Amino acid sequence: MWNKKRLAHIVFDSDDRESRLFDIVLLILILSSVTVAILDSVQSLREKYGDLFYILELTFTFLFTLEYILRVWLTSKTFKYVTSFFGLVDLLAILPVYLSFFVANTQLLSVIRALRLLRIVRVLKLGRYLAEADFIGDSLKASAAKIQLFLFSVLTIVLIMGTVMFVIEGPEHGFTSIPVSMYWAIVTLTTVGFGDITPSTPFGQFMASIIMLLGYAIIAVPTGIVTSEMAKRKKVSHYESLKSCTHCSFDAIEEGDNFCRKCGSRVD
Amino acid sequence: MWNKKRLAHIVFDSDDRESRLFDIVLLILILSSVTVAILDSVQSLREKYGDLFYILELTFTFLFTLEYILRVWLTSKTFKYVTSFFGLVDLLAILPVYLSFFVANTQLLSVIRALRLLRIVRVLKLGRYLAEADFIGDSLKASAAKIQLFLFSVLTIVLIMGTVMFVIEGPEHGFTSIPVSMYWAIVTLTTVGFGDITPSTPFGQFMASIIMLLGYAIIAVPTGIVTSEMAKRKKVSHYESLKSCTHCSFDAIEEGDNFCRKCGSRVD
Amino acid sequence: MWNKKRLAHIVFDSDDRESRLFDIVLLILILSSVTVAILDSVQSLREKYGDLFYILELTFTFLFTLEYILRVWLTSKTFKYVTSFFGLVDLLAILPVYLSFFVANTQLLSVIRALRLLRIVRVLKLGRYLAEADFIGDSLKASAAKIQLFLFSVLTIVLIMGTVMFVIEGPEHGFTSIPVSMYWAIVTLTTVGFGDITPSTPFGQFMASIIMLLGYAIIAVPTGIVTSEMAKRKKVSHYESLKSCTHCSFDAIEEGDNFCRKCGSRVD
Amino acid sequence: MWNKKRLAHIVFDSDDRESRLFDIVLLILILSSVTVAILDSVQSLREKYGDLFYILELTFTFLFTLEYILRVWLTSKTFKYVTSFFGLVDLLAILPVYLSFFVANTQLLSVIRALRLLRIVRVLKLGRYLAEADFIGDSLKASAAKIQLFLFSVLTIVLIMGTVMFVIEGPEHGFTSIPVSMYWAIVTLTTVGFGDITPSTPFGQFMASIIMLLGYAIIAVPTGIVTSEMAKRKKVSHYESLKSCTHCSFDAIEEGDNFCRKCGSRVD
Repeated sequence: MWNKKRLAHIVFDSDDRESRLFDIVLLILILSSVTVAILDSVQSLREKYGDLFYILELTFTFLFTLEYILRVWLTSKTFKYVTSFFGLVDLLAILPVYLSFFVANTQLLSVIRALRLLRIVRVLKLGRYLAEADFIGDSLKASAAKIQLFLFSVLTIVLIMGTVMFVIEGPEHGFTSIPVSMYWAIVTLTTVGFGDITPSTPFGQFMASIIMLLGYAIIAVPTGIVTSEMAKRKKVSHYESLKSCTHCSFDAIEEGDNFCRKCGSRVD
Repeated sequence: MWNKKRLAHIVFDSDDRESRLFDIVLLILILSSVTVAILDSVQSLREKYGDLFYILELTFTFLFTLEYILRVWLTSKTFKYVTSFFGLVDLLAILPVYLSFFVANTQLLSVIRALRLLRIVRVLKLGRYLAEADFIGDSLKASAAKIQLFLFSVLTIVLIMGTVMFVIEGPEHGFTSIPVSMYWAIVTLTTVGFGDITPSTPFGQFMASIIMLLGYAIIAVPTGIVTSEMAKRKKVSHYESLKSCTHCSFDAIEEGDNFCRKCGSRVD
Repeated sequence: MWNKKRLAHIVFDSDDRESRLFDIVLLILILSSVTVAILDSVQSLREKYGDLFYILELTFTFLFTLEYILRVWLTSKTFKYVTSFFGLVDLLAILPVYLSFFVANTQLLSVIRALRLLRIVRVLKLGRYLAEADFIGDSLKASAAKIQLFLFSVLTIVLIMGTVMFVIEGPEHGFTSIPVSMYWAIVTLTTVGFGDITPSTPFGQFMASIIMLLGYAIIAVPTGIVTSEMAKRKKVSHYESLKSCTHCSFDAIEEGDNFCRKCGSRVD
Repeated sequence: MWNKKRLAHIVFDSDDRESRLFDIVLLILILSSVTVAILDSVQSLREKYGDLFYILELTFTFLFTLEYILRVWLTSKTFKYVTSFFGLVDLLAILPVYLSFFVANTQLLSVIRALRLLRIVRVLKLGRYLAEADFIGDSLKASAAKIQLFLFSVLTIVLIMGTVMFVIEGPEHGFTSIPVSMYWAIVTLTTVGFGDITPSTPFGQFMASIIMLLGYAIIAVPTGIVTSEMAKRKKVSHYESLKSCTHCSFDAIEEGDNFCRKCGSRVD
């Protein structure tokens, strides 16, 4: 029973007790290893528990390496898996420790260590069975073209407003260059408002007010796009509850229809 | 007439003059005691009116204790009430003063004093008759799975962006650890933008801009979820009130129609 | 032709050339007087043009006084006008200058001077003919009960979160009292994020993150309420385009109806 | 084949290989010249690559001048093009370099240099074939009257709140004049929250809390307006595609139906 095919089912699917157990154990391992990586970045904790973190990290890497080898061995399409998005993420999740043996440069090391946190992306793979994920994903995908266009318009406003503020306020008030002014315009238009750069001249404050009111009005646009897309999608799912015609098997007989609108036969 | 059953009705229900009066008196007591607890936390007011606050606090505690004993005595399911959420809140609302007699540690005392403010939760119990609360509550409950998934996706973005900013900006610009970087990413993505930590390097400001625009685009998602849920809720309740014509089976006879508007036959 | 009745029409209505001209002149006067009051508050401008501002202010007050006397004289219901909301605003708009003759206290004077800006409220009176104002006003009024309940829930969250942060961070990190902590919680939950008070302890930053994500999720609620209310309102206005039955004058015959659903007579 | 008419087609239209190629080359030129102008504003880059930037700028100006002359020569309505919005933008995009030969004043020069960035507006012209742009543009145009009214109401709130905060907090806490107070009110109401000016008195913080909660509640209004407008736009386009049955006048025959689902008669 524990042949290669059964093993592949446990590793790749998620529809019976063993395969679901595998997913849950994997989920716990991923979340634990991410937690350890996060805590390891805190100076005070690292000084105290650095050795423990290192041992845990080695253990996690060993287990994930085992899992990666298992996946490569079990899959029928090795090349496709290795070059797929999640295949690359699986590989990147185990590389850091191995790379750290060969690298001495501390700055590069910190980048490599950070790579470990990419493991969190693997959790998304486990979410592929959720209908809610499909709903949100589909709504966003259908809105993508509109949101892209919207973001482009926002960038145009940001460029123009950033330039205007650069000319008005100038380097002496913190708007040192157009890129910095654009950064300020994004901070303002998205209503984040850090306050690290703020207008000081009356005219600058006047222009900033206009940008803020503009941001207030256009924040409605992405919301409107996604909401109307979701509302539409709800209506579509309503059609999924329809019956089929017993004569021609047309699949959209609504409540209260007397005749099939494809073949004209009476609906019981 | 003022037997135990009548008293229980007054305390637990809210459908006649006496029981409603009981609720209103209780509401005023709760709000007053919360106000006193809030004012008591202001140093300058406490120095002036500390004694008055203490006397008021003792009075409130005495009245709430009386009410708690009354509830335990009157209810038919004592154990269920005592262990219920609101039963525990009712108990926690009177404990602070009694506990403060035995505790000398000042820091623990301030935590105990803060517990008094939990009384505000009791107000929610009085709001259980509002239809509006049901509407908002139901819409949020129906959206819960989607909002949970959304928050999880947001946390993944926060983790990745926090790590990226930790690597780019580093401890010398305030991003002292990954948890702190994640705190900054949440502050930025939710458009709060305190400004206690801000990116200083050009590349850090560029990445921050992307996070802000991302936050601007995905703020649409929870809004879209709740809005389309509310809109659906409205529509369903409209269609549920429609009947069908018994003669031609036209399926949109509205309340108060005398004749079918398709075939003209009388509606029963 | 320029009798009292005609004059009352010009002053109170807005449906022919003269009465509309009166409204426009009034609008310009109000906006000019408000602009002067705003500029008068700027120290540097006041030092330069203080005398000019004072003369203009006297002129505006004279004109508005004339208008107020005219309104009191022309209206048929003097008492009702004087005690109405807009009647009081009209009076408050002219009082400041007269009061300033009798008041020597500078602080009280600055409050009185500020009262002049209430004149802007008078502009709203001129907007009473706009259909758009009705649409937004009606949508908000219909949502009022739900938004009130929502604001109350927000205040409960603010109270609990403010207390929690007061206990965690304490006076040494700027959370000097529960009211100040609640002010911070509102600043955070509404995503304003001034940054005048920010959490410094890791646990405080963790709790703040939860508040921010909460604010991010519940910002959807008021939007959902108003949007679904507006969408419903659109549908209602669709019914306004319906025809009337020629037989029983029932006023909701829809496109495509064969028979009146009230009296059963055939629709032409 | 390369006569004037063909050339005009290539320059002004975008429906075959050559004309589309012209648009793409133009798009790349515009984006490159904007990028150079942005980088040129960064002090450190300018010191290093100033000469390269100047040569590139001259090249771009030469090409855009060529294009402008081409457009003026090719169009059949020269006057209309030159005085149109995009005609003026095209002209403003090439003027800066020519003007900079005659201007010595450095401050005026920086304004002139900034004008180059207006070129980005030209990109919008290339987006005129996008259906998504129409959808967003139409929704915003249809909402314009309501959004204008909304912004006016917001300005009234801003004026009143700004005045109130000016009176409460006064110049000693940063609210130096009513215009500055109004700037603060906009920063707060739009939830930007820079934190450059913040209330310090308890009463000021209380009023600020009210403004923030107000902003939280009314941010729903523009979102509601645009969303319901977009949802309507979707619904109308759906209902417009429905036909009526010629036999029983049932009014919801969808595209592709063969038989009426009410009476079973064939649809033509």
